[in-house]
Amino acid sequence: MNIGLPEAWKTLCAHDDILLLTHRLPDGDAVGSLFALYEALSAMGKRVRYLLDTPPQDVNFLVREYTGDVFEPLFVVTVDVADRKLVYETPGTAYGDRVDLSIDHHASNNLFARQTLVLPEDAAAAEVLFELFTFGGVRITPRIADCLYTGIATDTGCFRYPNTTAATLRAAAALVDAGADNGRINTDIFETKSLAYVEFEASVMRSVQMFLDNRCAVATIPLSLFASTGVTEADAKAVNALPRQIEGVLAGVTVKERPEGGWRISVRTRAPLSASEICKRFGGGGHALAAGCELDGDLQTVVPQIVKAVEQELTSKNI
Amino acid sequence: MNIGLPEAWKTLCAHDDILLLTHRLPDGDAVGSLFALYEALSAMGKRVRYLLDTPPQDVNFLVREYTGDVFEPLFVVTVDVADRKLVYETPGTAYGDRVDLSIDHHASNNLFARQTLVLPEDAAAAEVLFELFTFGGVRITPRIADCLYTGIATDTGCFRYPNTTAATLRAAAALVDAGADNGRINTDIFETKSLAYVEFEASVMRSVQMFLDNRCAVATIPLSLFASTGVTEADAKAVNALPRQIEGVLAGVTVKERPEGGWRISVRTRAPLSASEICKRFGGGGHALAAGCELDGDLQTVVPQIVKAVEQELTSKNI
Repeated sequence: MNIGLPEAWKTLCAHDDILLLTHRLPDGDAVGSLFALYEALSAMGKRVRYLLDTPPQDVNFLVREYTGDVFEPLFVVTVDVADRKLVYETPGTAYGDRVDLSIDHHASNNLFARQTLVLPEDAAAAEVLFELFTFGGVRITPRIADCLYTGIATDTGCFRYPNTTAATLRAAAALVDAGADNGRINTDIFETKSLAYVEFEASVMRSVQMFLDNRCAVATIPLSLFASTGVTEADAKAVNALPRQIEGVLAGVTVKERPEGGWRISVRTRAPLSASEICKRFGGGGHALAAGCELDGDLQTVVPQIVKAVEQELTSKNI
Repeated sequence: MNIGLPEAWKTLCAHDDILLLTHRLPDGDAVGSLFALYEALSAMGKRVRYLLDTPPQDVNFLVREYTGDVFEPLFVVTVDVADRKLVYETPGTAYGDRVDLSIDHHASNNLFARQTLVLPEDAAAAEVLFELFTFGGVRITPRIADCLYTGIATDTGCFRYPNTTAATLRAAAALVDAGADNGRINTDIFETKSLAYVEFEASVMRSVQMFLDNRCAVATIPLSLFASTGVTEADAKAVNALPRQIEGVLAGVTVKERPEGGWRISVRTRAPLSASEICKRFGGGGHALAAGCELDGDLQTVVPQIVKAVEQELTSKNI
C-alpha cells in the first residue's frame, strides 16, 4: 500500500527493534540512505541494526561497523529498493519477505512491502529521507548530512542528470549548511580515480561498439578485465555512464560478465527513450533513463538481444 | 577601487552605451555572464554591445549574434576577467585600457579597472551577477537563467569542486525555478563527448607522466593532437581537470602547445597546495585550486620548470 510522508513518519515513530535493508551491490544512495536512517532512528532511542552488502570503495567513509546485538527485528525497513528480489540478505535470513516499510524513489517500485513511501519525482532515496526528516523535525547532524548528501550526489551524477530538480538543489544546500562536507565527498566520489581505474575506463571505452546508426553504443566488460586491473564490480559502476556520453547516442549499454555466470546489463538512455522499458523486456527495471537487467548466454547472443530491444523501443517512440 | 553590490548596481544604472568584454578563450562562465548582463541591461532600455572571442562548442547555444550599431561606448564593463592582459579585444581597439567596471570572482583580480566588484567567495562570475541581479530586483527570464546557470555549472564542474557553497546551490535552485534548462545544459556541457573528443581524451591520459612521488601528474598536448583529432583549444579545456583526478595527485598539470608558439599551462591542485602560487612564478594566476600561465621554450625545459615550481610549492607548504 502506498503511503505519504505523514503516515510513514508515524509508522516509523511507532515501532522499535528495527532492521534496515537495502539492495545488493549498494551504491552511494543505498549506503547513504541506510546510515542516515540508522542515525536518525538511533537518535530517537530506538534499537536499530542493518544488513549491508560490500559497498563501493568511494563511499566506504560512510560505513560504520555494527557492534550491537543481533536482535530479532520487529519492524523491517528497506531503502532504495524497488523489488523484493533486489534485497540484500545474508544466508538463512529471508527478511525481504516481510518488509514492513519500503522508502524509495523508483517509479518502478512494485509495492512488495506492506507499506511503501515512494516519491518518484525525487532524485534519490536520500532526497525522500531528507523530506521525511524535515517533516518529522529530525535534527540533521553533520553525519546525517554527509550520508544524505552522498546519496543525492551519487544518484544525480553530482547534479548533472535530468532528475535534478530545484528541490534537489535546495536539499543539497540545506545539507551543506547542516555540515555536509560536499567538497571532500565530491572529490572522493567524482574526482578521484586510481591508476587502475583509469586503465579500466580506457579499456571499457575501447570496447565500445556502435549500432543502429550510432544511436546505440555497447561496451562489454569481461571478467578478465576486472581481474587484470583489480577493479571491483562495485567500483566499476561509474563506467555505466560513459557509453551514453558519446554524441548522438540515445542508448548507452554496458554489458558486464558476472562471476556467477551470465551478464549484468546497464542501460542509460536519453529522453524520450526509456531504459526502464528496454530492461523490462528481460525482467529488469529501474528509472526512465537508467535501468538494468540480467541475461544469460554468450556475448554473441546477448549483445544482439539488447540491441534488438533498443531498436524496438526506438520504433515504439517513432525515433 | 573595490566596490560592493549596492555601488556596482548604482553605477550600472547610471550609465548607458555600454560595452561588455570578457577574457580570451572564453569558457561557460565568461559567455554566460556576458550574455546574462547583456540581457539584463538591454531589458533596462540601455544600448549595449559586446566583443566575444570564439566560444567553446558546448556553450554555443547561449551565443546571440549582435546586430545593432557599433557605437562608441561611454562605459566599459568586463566580466570574469582578473587582469587587463586577459581581456579579449579586436584589432585596433584598446578598450581593456579604459575599463570602468570589472565584475569578477577571482581573488587574484589586480584591480585593473576604475571600479571593481569582486566576490572571491563566489564560485563564478555568474554567481556574482546572480547576487547583483537579486540586489537590483532584475527579473530573471529563462534566457538569463540559462546564462547564469551555465556560468555557475561550468566553474564548479557542475557543483563538484570545493568552490561550491550552500549559496551556490541555492542560486542554482533559484535559476532552475526561473526556467534554466539544467538537464539539457548539463547534458550538453558535461555528458556529451564527440568520438573525436573521446579519442583526444584517451591520448591526453596516455601522455601523463608522474613526478614527485606520484604527487604531480603532467599531461602534454602537442599541436599535432589538435590537428589529428579536430578538437579545438576551446573545446579541449575539459581535459585540464583530468590529471588531478589520479589518486594521490596533488598537482595536475596540462601543457598545451600554442599555435603562436610556446605553451599554455593549466595547473589544478588539491588543498592546501596553491595552483595560483605555482602559476604566479611564471607571471600567471587564477584561483587557489585552478590557475594558468604561459611558458616559452621546448617541452624538455618547460616540463621540468613546472615540476620544479610544484616541488617548491610542496616544500613551502611542508607537504
